[in-house]
Amino acid sequence: MEEASRIKKYAADITSIREAQDRIKPFIHKTPVLSSETLSSISGRKLYFKCECFQKGGAFKFRGACNAIFSLADDQAVKGVVTHSSGNHAAALALAAKLRGIPAYIVIPRNAPKCKVENVLRYGGQVIWSEATMQSRESTASKILQETGGVLVHPYNDGRIISGQGTISLELLEQAPHLDTIIVPISGGGLISGVALAAKSINPAIRIFAAEPQGANDAAQSKAAARIITLPETNTIADGLRAFLGDLTWPVVRDLVDDVINVEDTEIIQAMKLCYEILKVAVEPSGAIGLAAVLSDSFRKNPVWNDCKHIGIILSGGNVDLGMLWDSFRK
Amino acid sequence: MEEASRIKKYAADITSIREAQDRIKPFIHKTPVLSSETLSSISGRKLYFKCECFQKGGAFKFRGACNAIFSLADDQAVKGVVTHSSGNHAAALALAAKLRGIPAYIVIPRNAPKCKVENVLRYGGQVIWSEATMQSRESTASKILQETGGVLVHPYNDGRIISGQGTISLELLEQAPHLDTIIVPISGGGLISGVALAAKSINPAIRIFAAEPQGANDAAQSKAAARIITLPETNTIADGLRAFLGDLTWPVVRDLVDDVINVEDTEIIQAMKLCYEILKVAVEPSGAIGLAAVLSDSFRKNPVWNDCKHIGIILSGGNVDLGMLWDSFRK
Repeated sequence: MEEASRIKKYAADITSIREAQDRIKPFIHKTPVLSSETLSSISGRKLYFKCECFQKGGAFKFRGACNAIFSLADDQAVKGVVTHSSGNHAAALALAAKLRGIPAYIVIPRNAPKCKVENVLRYGGQVIWSEATMQSRESTASKILQETGGVLVHPYNDGRIISGQGTISLELLEQAPHLDTIIVPISGGGLISGVALAAKSINPAIRIFAAEPQGANDAAQSKAAARIITLPETNTIADGLRAFLGDLTWPVVRDLVDDVINVEDTEIIQAMKLCYEILKVAVEPSGAIGLAAVLSDSFRKNPVWNDCKHIGIILSGGNVDLGMLWDSFRK
Repeated sequence: MEEASRIKKYAADITSIREAQDRIKPFIHKTPVLSSETLSSISGRKLYFKCECFQKGGAFKFRGACNAIFSLADDQAVKGVVTHSSGNHAAALALAAKLRGIPAYIVIPRNAPKCKVENVLRYGGQVIWSEATMQSRESTASKILQETGGVLVHPYNDGRIISGQGTISLELLEQAPHLDTIIVPISGGGLISGVALAAKSINPAIRIFAAEPQGANDAAQSKAAARIITLPETNTIADGLRAFLGDLTWPVVRDLVDDVINVEDTEIIQAMKLCYEILKVAVEPSGAIGLAAVLSDSFRKNPVWNDCKHIGIILSGGNVDLGMLWDSFRK
């Protein structure tokens, strides 16, 4: 009873996630779940890979962006959406806006990778340049919001985004109903919040682990301190995992994420290599971190490791430059 | 009536293919079908990618190998199976033999790709090296057959192999029933024979196109000459597409394959790049040739091109060394 009432305090719940699924179904890919006896054998566990790298735009971000954009009332939507991002959320928002036929204004720092900018342009997003600092990004976005009257769509600290990402669990637990554990990359916490809320609503006994780079371990530190910790700087190859928890994602992470597994960049690179060589799937560093976590010593030493027999791993994105992949393999 | 009686003259038919499906179902992956609006837009056609690169062993070959091995009587099986192959058939046979608990003796030419040899070893195949010539491969295999009393499982000129590969069509036409065209890589013809026999049995109006490297265009030449043509040498990046048609596959190719589309290696490399960057899938050169064919000028000039609206493309395998992929992209 107390549990049920507490769930409603979060920015999303199973109802908003099911609504999101109905809303975005016509637009998203239902991504396949792959398995590999070789990888299961290496890990000593049965592994199920939810391939969000095959999602439109190459990452799970399209689910949340699509839900946010198709949730807007017509009079709001017509003015367009605004965000600041140098990553997959920017392209996802541009693509979802294009599908609804509304403008997307994307503030991009001047140091953003060229391929990510190209993705935004390919989907018809209107790029507004800012300096690389968060201050410049935010002030530029504010200016655009004022000028356009558009709606800000934050990459993760938004109930519509969390609900959209949560649709992954609805699919995954239909495709692999016997999972006892799901491992999810953590950055700002939008993905893991949605996944945890939906999965624990369907199966309260399921374990949700966050996979996080050692060099951006704010979630592990936050869990340990029982409050949001931010870091003065981050240092990881996983460019998608450098954000910090927000006030809407933190309560879910605090309450519903069983533990955070920190891994080194070398482990992430090894996991990318296994994804490529064994699964035949292109996965970016942030996307491979779940496999890295499963194979890590710290997970094997976790007290519940023995009980994690059927593990879902979310391969969250596949936007990785081949040259970067090859360079990292040779290091 | 005449059509029905002629079908039975081939080494496989819809009945043997359905039997194969029942036989191999417990062992194979039902591979997903991916689509991409970007690639459909580039081609001007709706494309459906049957991802046999996700098959066990990283290629469709496991279907045929599995069917051949589980077709054997116990007293035959116990002596093991023998083949000569530089590629995916070798690994597939080793893996299928391992599942049945029988030995697999694999004759491999010294110039075989490293990742494919590693696959054979990973699956417990017993590697016997030969020189790179077909003569050396065949004489070494003969010697092993005599020594072991094992059964030769030819990579393609075998009804059990053709039937196993044909199960792809059963799955694909269930996953994408509205296809009007399927594009299939052609080498020895085992894959395309199975695919054509099953698909045309289900939908006689469906078109089957072979995709073949210009530098190993024996199938195109054979179709033009109305008899099997072999080449003095082949020259293509697609290491899996250098074999010639056999006496069991040729009649099917002659009668049921609508046309052969020849593509240059540069087109294959471009298709691999698109598979990696857009689909996020690792595809070897032989595997990418179907996409290369769809995007080629010669296909666009084909008289039936306008009628090919929903095209299935078989991504036949994903065993490609990353270094080779990267090198080919930089050329």
